[in-house]
Amino acid sequence: MISVAIVGANGYSGEELCAILARHPSARVVAVTSRQHAGKKIGDVLPRMAGRGAFSDLPFSEPSLPGLLASGAEYFFLALPHGLASEFAGPLFEAGRRVVDLSADFRLRDAATYREFYGEAHGAEHLLSLAVYGLPEVHREAIRQARLVASAGCYPTSILLPLVPLLRAGLIEAGDISVSSASGVSGAGRKAETSLLYGECNESLRAYGLPKHRHLTEIEQELSLAADRPVVISFVPHLSPMTRGIHTTIFTRPSPGTDPDAVLPALEEAYAQEPFVRVSKNLPDTKNVSGTNFCDISVRYDSRAKRLILLSAVDNLVKGAAGQAVQNFHLMAGLDEAAGLL
Amino acid sequence: MISVAIVGANGYSGEELCAILARHPSARVVAVTSRQHAGKKIGDVLPRMAGRGAFSDLPFSEPSLPGLLASGAEYFFLALPHGLASEFAGPLFEAGRRVVDLSADFRLRDAATYREFYGEAHGAEHLLSLAVYGLPEVHREAIRQARLVASAGCYPTSILLPLVPLLRAGLIEAGDISVSSASGVSGAGRKAETSLLYGECNESLRAYGLPKHRHLTEIEQELSLAADRPVVISFVPHLSPMTRGIHTTIFTRPSPGTDPDAVLPALEEAYAQEPFVRVSKNLPDTKNVSGTNFCDISVRYDSRAKRLILLSAVDNLVKGAAGQAVQNFHLMAGLDEAAGLL
Amino acid sequence: MISVAIVGANGYSGEELCAILARHPSARVVAVTSRQHAGKKIGDVLPRMAGRGAFSDLPFSEPSLPGLLASGAEYFFLALPHGLASEFAGPLFEAGRRVVDLSADFRLRDAATYREFYGEAHGAEHLLSLAVYGLPEVHREAIRQARLVASAGCYPTSILLPLVPLLRAGLIEAGDISVSSASGVSGAGRKAETSLLYGECNESLRAYGLPKHRHLTEIEQELSLAADRPVVISFVPHLSPMTRGIHTTIFTRPSPGTDPDAVLPALEEAYAQEPFVRVSKNLPDTKNVSGTNFCDISVRYDSRAKRLILLSAVDNLVKGAAGQAVQNFHLMAGLDEAAGLL
Amino acid sequence: MISVAIVGANGYSGEELCAILARHPSARVVAVTSRQHAGKKIGDVLPRMAGRGAFSDLPFSEPSLPGLLASGAEYFFLALPHGLASEFAGPLFEAGRRVVDLSADFRLRDAATYREFYGEAHGAEHLLSLAVYGLPEVHREAIRQARLVASAGCYPTSILLPLVPLLRAGLIEAGDISVSSASGVSGAGRKAETSLLYGECNESLRAYGLPKHRHLTEIEQELSLAADRPVVISFVPHLSPMTRGIHTTIFTRPSPGTDPDAVLPALEEAYAQEPFVRVSKNLPDTKNVSGTNFCDISVRYDSRAKRLILLSAVDNLVKGAAGQAVQNFHLMAGLDEAAGLL
Repeated sequence: MISVAIVGANGYSGEELCAILARHPSARVVAVTSRQHAGKKIGDVLPRMAGRGAFSDLPFSEPSLPGLLASGAEYFFLALPHGLASEFAGPLFEAGRRVVDLSADFRLRDAATYREFYGEAHGAEHLLSLAVYGLPEVHREAIRQARLVASAGCYPTSILLPLVPLLRAGLIEAGDISVSSASGVSGAGRKAETSLLYGECNESLRAYGLPKHRHLTEIEQELSLAADRPVVISFVPHLSPMTRGIHTTIFTRPSPGTDPDAVLPALEEAYAQEPFVRVSKNLPDTKNVSGTNFCDISVRYDSRAKRLILLSAVDNLVKGAAGQAVQNFHLMAGLDEAAGLL
Repeated sequence: MISVAIVGANGYSGEELCAILARHPSARVVAVTSRQHAGKKIGDVLPRMAGRGAFSDLPFSEPSLPGLLASGAEYFFLALPHGLASEFAGPLFEAGRRVVDLSADFRLRDAATYREFYGEAHGAEHLLSLAVYGLPEVHREAIRQARLVASAGCYPTSILLPLVPLLRAGLIEAGDISVSSASGVSGAGRKAETSLLYGECNESLRAYGLPKHRHLTEIEQELSLAADRPVVISFVPHLSPMTRGIHTTIFTRPSPGTDPDAVLPALEEAYAQEPFVRVSKNLPDTKNVSGTNFCDISVRYDSRAKRLILLSAVDNLVKGAAGQAVQNFHLMAGLDEAAGLL
Repeated sequence: MISVAIVGANGYSGEELCAILARHPSARVVAVTSRQHAGKKIGDVLPRMAGRGAFSDLPFSEPSLPGLLASGAEYFFLALPHGLASEFAGPLFEAGRRVVDLSADFRLRDAATYREFYGEAHGAEHLLSLAVYGLPEVHREAIRQARLVASAGCYPTSILLPLVPLLRAGLIEAGDISVSSASGVSGAGRKAETSLLYGECNESLRAYGLPKHRHLTEIEQELSLAADRPVVISFVPHLSPMTRGIHTTIFTRPSPGTDPDAVLPALEEAYAQEPFVRVSKNLPDTKNVSGTNFCDISVRYDSRAKRLILLSAVDNLVKGAAGQAVQNFHLMAGLDEAAGLL
Repeated sequence: MISVAIVGANGYSGEELCAILARHPSARVVAVTSRQHAGKKIGDVLPRMAGRGAFSDLPFSEPSLPGLLASGAEYFFLALPHGLASEFAGPLFEAGRRVVDLSADFRLRDAATYREFYGEAHGAEHLLSLAVYGLPEVHREAIRQARLVASAGCYPTSILLPLVPLLRAGLIEAGDISVSSASGVSGAGRKAETSLLYGECNESLRAYGLPKHRHLTEIEQELSLAADRPVVISFVPHLSPMTRGIHTTIFTRPSPGTDPDAVLPALEEAYAQEPFVRVSKNLPDTKNVSGTNFCDISVRYDSRAKRLILLSAVDNLVKGAAGQAVQNFHLMAGLDEAAGLL
């Protein structure tokens, strides 16, 4: 059993990490932190996690570095707000521990871009070049070698998985990509904000964060890598009245000379060996991936307008957060990539 | 008081017509039809409509033409499935009655297009040229003169209202328009289909009807009129877990030479006198239009990708169906356009 | 036109008051207050209320007494948290204005009970005996004469309307009443609390506030009046994943000698002339009263266990708050009781 | 690996069985049946079940007895409508196979009661005395020996688990029990009925099936066994706008002489060794048990009315159906009771 710690375990992603790791066949959670709940047992703070033996009785501790180092954990999952994650990642990294960060702190290679989009200087710039972008389907080998993995976010995962293989193969026009995504409300975190109340989100569909959503940066960074040229996209995120799930619809065009009917087979081939990507003729539906680590992908060709429409669905808390983090952990630790995730 | 009839009153649009007309200051419902519920009182079939005096006691009748003509109604609202509406509209029209049709049967000017998208011949082709497309903000004067109005549908309303003034003014590129819309489940009607069950729609977001949705035809017809050239768009409708509401997000580009900052003022000016269009800097939210006849519109410019993003929201059952039909009726009958709708 | 003011207009009840009064045939809103939004226009703060002419442009003012008195309003709707309402009600009352209070501050006749359940002394004890409990179906004549009406709350309305006529007629056992109610989340107000987030309320059903919910006091006060003896009940409120609506299920027993089949007719007779109570054999459903001022009531007899089961449904924001307040206002002002509420 | 078959795998309970058994550590699904989908692969019919290796490629077969016997399965899970289950259970039983039936067909010991509540004669009366009521916490030893287990239903599980230990210990008055339960819509099955549409269930809370719900029979049978005297209760089921979950609120009274404070400890002791019952001071919430096999239980004493209020929550598809069935299977097969269920 490998000892792991969850730093920031009472947000939605942290709780989902608890749910996955509590029953993990080869990981044992030795520490969970929460400033707010320090001293209380997991099972008392998160009633969903009660009744799971020793795990439920584990007390939350203050998120202090000495305490974390003393916990004996080899791997640290950071489920902290951006900005705070880098405060922990640096010292843990330097102490030789392995880190899977679920925040945006280490997803960008460029500190200037971080500053532009996040409005503050990065807390640990020197680590940016060491961190690996944690999307296993794209960077599997690098993740295997990494000691600091910046687990890919929910919107990016749903956007990158359909696009990356097509950009790599030159099948679509990198200069003409528009993305409309809709997320369940858990994507905004467990924050006491009026705009996230049930009464404000139910029977409500709305766009937000326009025109310059923070996730754009990591999306375009990875798309540009895949296309081997700078890619700029339009991205409109929406909030949909559901707890979990992200659905993404992408408008693009086939490259000149590309047979539109070759796109689905190209995606099927790209993901034939992937345990968590399901390419299908059927249109994705968030409910089919809810509670799972799958990303469902499909495509349609609009022959009238000569556009390709790519569609995908993930559970924002699993493949978009906790499940992906555990998948990254598996790669780093040499475990079966799908252990406990199917 | 003007006597009106609702033909097909037990679907969602028909019930919403009942709700609006039951308290209308200058219309009196003299007949409601429902094949399934003939003989029963409105208030017993639709419990929401009970307790509203004489209206609640009105019995449903069979939808027969002689019965409708004998009812004394001057105006007929047809809330029937497409194909069936034209069977009633023709004889009513020929008998000198005025018709507001909520179906798609008379929205197209071209019978061949109808056949292509609906898979069958049109039932009353000769009326197509007499019918007026019932979107008051676009065809107000024609509606005033019309005896047969094809009330605009829900997706089209949410797409046309942001686009038409911009196409008319040449502010956007008509050749580059992609639309992603999400609708509440009532948009699919009160049909006993497994895919519309609560358990299938809750916590579910999914696209459907790709790539050639029937509503495309009327949308493109009206966009082409506005642009004065053929316009072809891409349109992806989604089902969102809510009962009411349509949210539309449109990706397009400003025309060469257009100042992106001129778009919001252009929309504000176009709709300054309209009682039911609210242009604002705030992003639209379906919950703000739910139960109302408003269409909310906003716009953002994505300067990085040089795209305009237009956003709108309507209640699919009100401005997208029953409210719009009543607004059309007001125009035809010379009534205050907003009577009972604010 | 009667001039009215809404004090505390940006909570859910206050917003619903705005929606009703903005289109009221004989009331004109001359002042709306909100500490948080003072200086901003209603239509900017509450986007749902935009586009409604002069009403939308009315600015929120600070809730100061001099300002309210200077507004020219004759009637004041107080949609404030309990405790705060009594600070305004007293001076307004003493200045000769008429007050409809939507809070719990004046619902109890006994200041000691207030202290026991609300944990603090009452702010205007001397007014308790002057206030009338604002449930029109029970206290219509007193409300007509009143200058201070404590509009009945949502749970109480749904519980009292089925029970009061039966207790008055001695048809049920006052000593054996258990009530299970479920409310939509808007009942908890527009408060930035984690427990009210979409992610915490969706797919969640839970009881709360046990065993001594504050609303018990006013319920038992009114039941005791109806039964002419002290009545003590058990009451379990639940939160259900919906925005609006309260459903109440009451377990009781017929009095010795009562024919269980006489209960439905007794309810029908009691409410035959009431504009907003619908007694029916059909089981109530919150969606049928949503957005309306109706209370739906039905009853079943469980002959095996010899229990009566009473069921009711109201919209917590309309008949349970704003609609009821306006109905009370109509009585106080000698207006048509149903004006603008049907 | 033990070979099992799922008969009727495309309803909600059947799909949940697929989800649990697809990753079961010691069971292998060798046959799944569906009249409607025979010949198609599981992963194509139930997109949620795609991507799970060989399991996803298993084709649905017609539910024929010879086919089932030839499949090699030792255990058969019947997820069929009542009435149909007994047609399969008999022959399978007589052929020496072991059966876990999720329908109501074998839950009653008395064929006359079945006829009274289900309106038709029982199809295999001779088996009633051989079947064991499949609630492990109550009948564990009998289930271990059984060859035909009638897995307990969702409402009964949520009602029996709080009550049985208290009735056995004589702590409550068996003659005064009223139950109000609310279920998610999946409890009604995947049936194409108008009343189960999203538009009919969202923002809706309603009672149904009054006053004589079919589940009453099995509930009272088991309560009477626990109390060792006939127990008659009142039971009001409600439909709540959520997909999964049952919440139950029970009104009863402590027996004369019972210390109300002894009730929670009595429940804690009764379930101290149970893997799937969590007794707590915290009020149950369906979202905490959603997707799990747990039943959460709590209690409050209403000292004013001298009533005990018992509360519980289960996931109707897991502990109320598929999870419970698998738990029963574990007991019958001598497996770890919690395998794959935590």
